[in-house]
Amino acid sequence: MEDKFELLEHLRIIIDNRDVKALREFCNTIEPVDFADAANSIEDVSKLLFVFRTVESEYTAEVFTELSTEQQNRLIELFSDKQIKDLIENTYTDDIVKFLTDMPSNLVNRVLQKADKETRRDINTILNYQPYTAGSLMTTEYIELRGNLTVKQALDYIRENGQDAITIYDIFIIDNKRNLVEVVGLDKLIFAEDNEEIAEIAKIEPVFVHVSTDQEEVARLFKRYDKTTLPVLNKDNKMVGVITVDDIIDVIVEEHTEDIARMAAVAPLEKSYRESSIMSLVKSSLPWLILLMVLGIFSSLIINKFESQIATVIIMSSFIPLLLASAGNAGTQTASLVIRSLALNEYHKGEYRKIIGKETKTGLLVALGLGLFTFAFIPLLFIIGIVNVTQLEDLTFVKWSPNWWISILEISGTISITITISIVIFKFVGAILPLTARLIKKDPALMSNPFITTISDIVTNNLLSANYGDYINE
Amino acid sequence: MEDKFELLEHLRIIIDNRDVKALREFCNTIEPVDFADAANSIEDVSKLLFVFRTVESEYTAEVFTELSTEQQNRLIELFSDKQIKDLIENTYTDDIVKFLTDMPSNLVNRVLQKADKETRRDINTILNYQPYTAGSLMTTEYIELRGNLTVKQALDYIRENGQDAITIYDIFIIDNKRNLVEVVGLDKLIFAEDNEEIAEIAKIEPVFVHVSTDQEEVARLFKRYDKTTLPVLNKDNKMVGVITVDDIIDVIVEEHTEDIARMAAVAPLEKSYRESSIMSLVKSSLPWLILLMVLGIFSSLIINKFESQIATVIIMSSFIPLLLASAGNAGTQTASLVIRSLALNEYHKGEYRKIIGKETKTGLLVALGLGLFTFAFIPLLFIIGIVNVTQLEDLTFVKWSPNWWISILEISGTISITITISIVIFKFVGAILPLTARLIKKDPALMSNPFITTISDIVTNNLLSANYGDYINE
Repeated sequence: MEDKFELLEHLRIIIDNRDVKALREFCNTIEPVDFADAANSIEDVSKLLFVFRTVESEYTAEVFTELSTEQQNRLIELFSDKQIKDLIENTYTDDIVKFLTDMPSNLVNRVLQKADKETRRDINTILNYQPYTAGSLMTTEYIELRGNLTVKQALDYIRENGQDAITIYDIFIIDNKRNLVEVVGLDKLIFAEDNEEIAEIAKIEPVFVHVSTDQEEVARLFKRYDKTTLPVLNKDNKMVGVITVDDIIDVIVEEHTEDIARMAAVAPLEKSYRESSIMSLVKSSLPWLILLMVLGIFSSLIINKFESQIATVIIMSSFIPLLLASAGNAGTQTASLVIRSLALNEYHKGEYRKIIGKETKTGLLVALGLGLFTFAFIPLLFIIGIVNVTQLEDLTFVKWSPNWWISILEISGTISITITISIVIFKFVGAILPLTARLIKKDPALMSNPFITTISDIVTNNLLSANYGDYINE
Repeated sequence: MEDKFELLEHLRIIIDNRDVKALREFCNTIEPVDFADAANSIEDVSKLLFVFRTVESEYTAEVFTELSTEQQNRLIELFSDKQIKDLIENTYTDDIVKFLTDMPSNLVNRVLQKADKETRRDINTILNYQPYTAGSLMTTEYIELRGNLTVKQALDYIRENGQDAITIYDIFIIDNKRNLVEVVGLDKLIFAEDNEEIAEIAKIEPVFVHVSTDQEEVARLFKRYDKTTLPVLNKDNKMVGVITVDDIIDVIVEEHTEDIARMAAVAPLEKSYRESSIMSLVKSSLPWLILLMVLGIFSSLIINKFESQIATVIIMSSFIPLLLASAGNAGTQTASLVIRSLALNEYHKGEYRKIIGKETKTGLLVALGLGLFTFAFIPLLFIIGIVNVTQLEDLTFVKWSPNWWISILEISGTISITITISIVIFKFVGAILPLTARLIKKDPALMSNPFITTISDIVTNNLLSANYGDYINE
């Protein structure tokens, strides 16, 4: 990661000089994912075609699967039929499915047309499984053998046919009805005698999943049994695919990101935080803030109904903190997204101001949204009669105007403005705190929700006092 | 997991009948981790000795590493010298280190005495690395070869010496100064010609870590490069060990658990939630609650200092919500621990009442602790003069007694009781909400912190009103 810019510079020079020898040398020493990282920053995609023409397809196919969605789509548009064919032939089905999922349908069709019949069938099968299930994670290139082969026969077969398999380290033994009987490690074959029957080597009942098994359960089995692959069976218990541990690590990290988002009441983002637009951030947080606020108001009103004798003052005084809790919630949402993004190393130190910029913009939009909502919502409560004007006349800090509608709008306005300002502040605080923690080398997760809500409680209370100061002093 | 009780019953019968044949058959079909799960429930550990005497050490050693700490310690006490020797010889260094870390020192010494010199040196080296670094995760059994060997020579060597290596799927090529030059997959050797030099086969620069690399960074590299092993170098850049992906999955899950705890301001637990005692739960949550409360009070006082003209009423009215925020924080702590425990499947459905019992007991203790603290802390603020009695006389809901000390104790008492009750309630709510979500098949993580704090704000406000009702109505 450190020398990303160096890699990019190097790649630029090679491409500009069309230096075939240097390019081959470069690919020989650089991991495909690092190559893809640099290639993502090459804006004129047509320049990358030189790479795909020059380097062997096995390598470029791996690079392709690691590129950003945008680069992938642009490349597919530029690729010749032959290049698409090469790409598909050198990519495992699960990776093909992964990039097809994010691709516009005209490009998907273009790709599928170039695939041979069997591959197309496999891709369509996997695409049809529910997302987040074992079926959607598996790939179909694995080695299955009959148990009555000898070790020598098995090794010869693997040597000849194993090149296209995703792994040759686990061999799946099936009976003549394609039922999975055993899983045997290549190491066991290596250590065994040439003429042993492979079925005799491993006796432990195979651990497997079904196509419909939830990906969290799949991850749990990988962890429990320390596996690097798990076989996938269909409804009829026939083996149809295999899942590899690298995909499971992605699943575990993805589920973690989702959990953290949910715990802060943000709808999980579809892309990484880094790739998410301002609007998608607003969309994932604003509805929850509104929902929580409405929920809070109504439950407060319900509880108050049952305590009629103390209701008058309490309605508004339990009302206001509730509205203001939104600031804390907003800060928590931002902090959680930023903490997670930092944990995934999406930004390096020089880019932290990008995060602050992003959250300031998102904060302004969310604050505006919630402010407007509140301004309309509070008078609504009076109109539909849930809150009664007579209940409010005791309120010490409101100077009642002869026309009580003006007073209501005044309350509503004060609260909306307070909410708007405090949300902007707390989106900002929610971003600053984890960033500061990271800069002073503490775990950003320490800048936790309770810290932010505690601080937000204080500040919003005081903001409100400041806005109401006039009335209180009179 | 489903048939755990069946397995246990089966194992009990085998052991009671000392049925050697059935035991061997049983071990042949059951994964060691499942065997260990059943064996953890056998209370008379001496009965397990039969298993360790009968079954081959390779299998029992794996079972041993998966047993609970208690069972491991008891077994080591009962083991003969020979059995300890067998155990060590059949266990990888990283796993030995793992169980030694949790073992009383007399037992550790017993184990180390039985290890051969080289193993003892390796164990001590790993034990000396900082926890949570690559050094503490690695194992020393790997295959290193010189690059000038031919494929055939390499395969012959692996066949003869690979049995004790943690994996033979990655072969580490070193030069004559023990510097790591390349990493080559066994599959590459299998597909290559017999007389090729192994150094010629893989050219990509090896990805590696240093002994001091943080485990989070190690996990990130595994994820980025889709590796199943990574070599570990020491300060002088010599290769000293290898880390395998199964340990990295444990690291990722552990870091996730820690993040979630931190985000809810709970000190990360040392054991799993299921294995944590009530006292360790109290210890991990109470200090944070107190810290947050004190932090809240002081920042509130500081802010108020700068707004002198409206200070009088505000001090107590921004004071009280802060104290009550503790209830929300306590609920959040519980919810986070329970959500995580459910995600890790630590309890099955029939056991959910155990969680509720645990949280009720923890809740009572935490509530009592925080209640007592508050009762002492509030008068203290008056004694050291941070809050002034004259500032309080405006407080509408306090009937000032002629002796203002009684009033202060009354305020302090009312607030403490409110906090105590509301914390008990919210520890309970924090446990019930995620459990309910799981029962109705929703993601427990949806029962998020903001939900709990929103509800807690309402309830505590009303609890307080109820306690203050008398004064308000007068």
